[in-house]
Amino acid sequence: MSVNPENVIANLKDLQALTANQDGAQRLAWSPVWMQARAWFATKQEGFGFEYHLDAAGNRWVTLPGKSKSALVIGSHLDSVPNGGWLDGCLGVLAGLEVLRALAEEYQGEPPFTVRLVDWADEEGARFGRSLFGSSAFAGTATIAEDRARRDRDGNVLAETLAHCGVDIDRVAEARAEQANMAAYLELHIEQGPVLEAMSLPLGAVLGTKGVERHAITFLGQESHSGSTPMAARKDALAAAAKLALEIRNIARKHEDAVCTVGSVKTYPGIVTAVVGRCEMTLDQRDLNAAVLAQLLLEARQASRQFAAEEGCTVEWSKIWSIEPIPFDAELIELCKEAIFEVAGASHSMPSGPLHDAAEVARLGVPTVMMFVQSIGGVSHNKIEDTRIEHLHMAIRAFDRLTAKTLTWMKQRTAAE
Amino acid sequence: MSVNPENVIANLKDLQALTANQDGAQRLAWSPVWMQARAWFATKQEGFGFEYHLDAAGNRWVTLPGKSKSALVIGSHLDSVPNGGWLDGCLGVLAGLEVLRALAEEYQGEPPFTVRLVDWADEEGARFGRSLFGSSAFAGTATIAEDRARRDRDGNVLAETLAHCGVDIDRVAEARAEQANMAAYLELHIEQGPVLEAMSLPLGAVLGTKGVERHAITFLGQESHSGSTPMAARKDALAAAAKLALEIRNIARKHEDAVCTVGSVKTYPGIVTAVVGRCEMTLDQRDLNAAVLAQLLLEARQASRQFAAEEGCTVEWSKIWSIEPIPFDAELIELCKEAIFEVAGASHSMPSGPLHDAAEVARLGVPTVMMFVQSIGGVSHNKIEDTRIEHLHMAIRAFDRLTAKTLTWMKQRTAAE
Repeated sequence: MSVNPENVIANLKDLQALTANQDGAQRLAWSPVWMQARAWFATKQEGFGFEYHLDAAGNRWVTLPGKSKSALVIGSHLDSVPNGGWLDGCLGVLAGLEVLRALAEEYQGEPPFTVRLVDWADEEGARFGRSLFGSSAFAGTATIAEDRARRDRDGNVLAETLAHCGVDIDRVAEARAEQANMAAYLELHIEQGPVLEAMSLPLGAVLGTKGVERHAITFLGQESHSGSTPMAARKDALAAAAKLALEIRNIARKHEDAVCTVGSVKTYPGIVTAVVGRCEMTLDQRDLNAAVLAQLLLEARQASRQFAAEEGCTVEWSKIWSIEPIPFDAELIELCKEAIFEVAGASHSMPSGPLHDAAEVARLGVPTVMMFVQSIGGVSHNKIEDTRIEHLHMAIRAFDRLTAKTLTWMKQRTAAE
Repeated sequence: MSVNPENVIANLKDLQALTANQDGAQRLAWSPVWMQARAWFATKQEGFGFEYHLDAAGNRWVTLPGKSKSALVIGSHLDSVPNGGWLDGCLGVLAGLEVLRALAEEYQGEPPFTVRLVDWADEEGARFGRSLFGSSAFAGTATIAEDRARRDRDGNVLAETLAHCGVDIDRVAEARAEQANMAAYLELHIEQGPVLEAMSLPLGAVLGTKGVERHAITFLGQESHSGSTPMAARKDALAAAAKLALEIRNIARKHEDAVCTVGSVKTYPGIVTAVVGRCEMTLDQRDLNAAVLAQLLLEARQASRQFAAEEGCTVEWSKIWSIEPIPFDAELIELCKEAIFEVAGASHSMPSGPLHDAAEVARLGVPTVMMFVQSIGGVSHNKIEDTRIEHLHMAIRAFDRLTAKTLTWMKQRTAAE
């Protein structure tokens, strides 16, 4: 009368056979392969008494109506990056489907609360550069005006591509209607990082998604000849950038879990015989604590000014993007830790560096938690992305327990009201 | 009966009016503008009893025959980089012409030794990437097989472009014939660096051209997600490269006049959300002392291995190009210092970071020296390249004195034999 992890793994393998080639998964959102994945998914929902429909933003909702309209929602996404893995996103959707199936069986078609599964549209943003597309529309944070004209690398316009999939860009905000009666949100996902593997733990409870500060930084020095310019006479923009690329690591290490990354450095004129006159770099900083995140940014700015002055350069900052930290629900985190402990004998709590659809839901104020399962080598967004089968089994069983605990918690809350 | 600096400056201004546009000098070697500059230069050689001809590599030789066939050669180049300055190269050619004119006048057409002026072809290599083209052919270090198929950015092939200018690529080595009877070589050039200006000196005697070690260095780490990869779990190729970009400065500073430059850094995948998995950089190291140059390279290699190990990366080196240091003649350096001191009241001796045609001549074993005149702001290869008029006057007068001293030195050497 409970979940069967083998069902989930069989479905994951079916989906992989249907939508991956030798380079990995190709379920790029709004593509024919993604539509094919969703059509296959629809066939898997039949026969259990579920209701299902697409919302105005292209999210697919599967509903097991309960005695109460108050709903527990389980979600994740079927779309993948190009050349992606067999687990990112679809593990959560197919585990959720198995949980719904088991609940339908357990409660003979009518659980005490409504339970819903959502396959969010275009979580990855891999094609048009707009991640969390469906969940942000649901949460009321859609950016229609700015997204309408986005193009993929083949020149296709987002609004037109959506229309081919039956989604009207001007109406995506209507997906907010799905917020009604939502009492809790749960999401199972692979970690996509090396933390659990390093701790030899299969599962982790997620504390929230880290806030992100993302900036472009440009140092301006003086281009000069590599042969005729003495070391002491240089204004080397690369030297200032190199100092900052190293210092952001010291800044991050003052705080547990904080990360700072210089992902791109560009040098101008960028030739072997010239001292670098202009150096452009990117900085990505993340932490779950808003005060820590602000401190990371402040210290990086101060360091950049100091290094610019030391090297006779100037420095300019330009914001690329930022988002605040989004903590998950403290009570649901406790339930998640309990469920993990019962299945795995040990639990770990950790923030998520990557964003997830759960962040959009949590921003709404809906009590939310995520569960992570170990990623081998921390690798994701790649065809070699993998998780040990015994860990997948544990993840599905622990997630099922989390669902049961959350339904009990909803009952207690209803009683307390 | 001596040089008139005003003649040289008038010629420089004429040449600029003829061959520069609003972006600077456009005397790119083998181009119509360069041919026009040479045709103008030919008219300036008439009426003094000079012989002149092109050699097999396109170098233009102007000869004032003397009582002895033993020849003092003065040289530089009329070609410029695109958007170049009004002095780089042509100062030396036009000052040399004035020296020849004055000598013809002084000795009524027949000095004790033959005096020759050479306008080297394609010193800059700005169009086909092969600098010192004409002087290397003269010196017997031409690289015909490798140069034949070089193309400019418009797709023109070097061999065909040379043919249009009357130069047969297969015969350029015949320019070695011009080596006959060559007893000494002198070259006046702008410094193209900030050293003399920083010392408030107009002129410097050049000790030789620095040797160059030029390498591409690649650090390989592990690309990973900027959000999900803890700082301690990273293999950041950029961090190793940043450490090396800073350490090469410490390595250089142990030696007076040594320079080390990282001119280019490239990051892969080079996106804001990924730790850098591969970082490519260039390193250019120069010194006049071969042992110091070897030490610079050794220490950089050692440092790169250390930093790679510290960051969990590997490192690979690949040589781009190298040339040994080429010291000039000790006795001619002394004469150059004397000439400078007599004109300017103070002298400085310095190595040249940039290469010059003089390096190819000195490699042959011909006693060689160069004289540098201050560059304002150290700027060259740019339309704002400039030198104060009073410094140009001093340079031309000092160079004339150096020529006279060298003729005396040749006479002493002949007597001693």
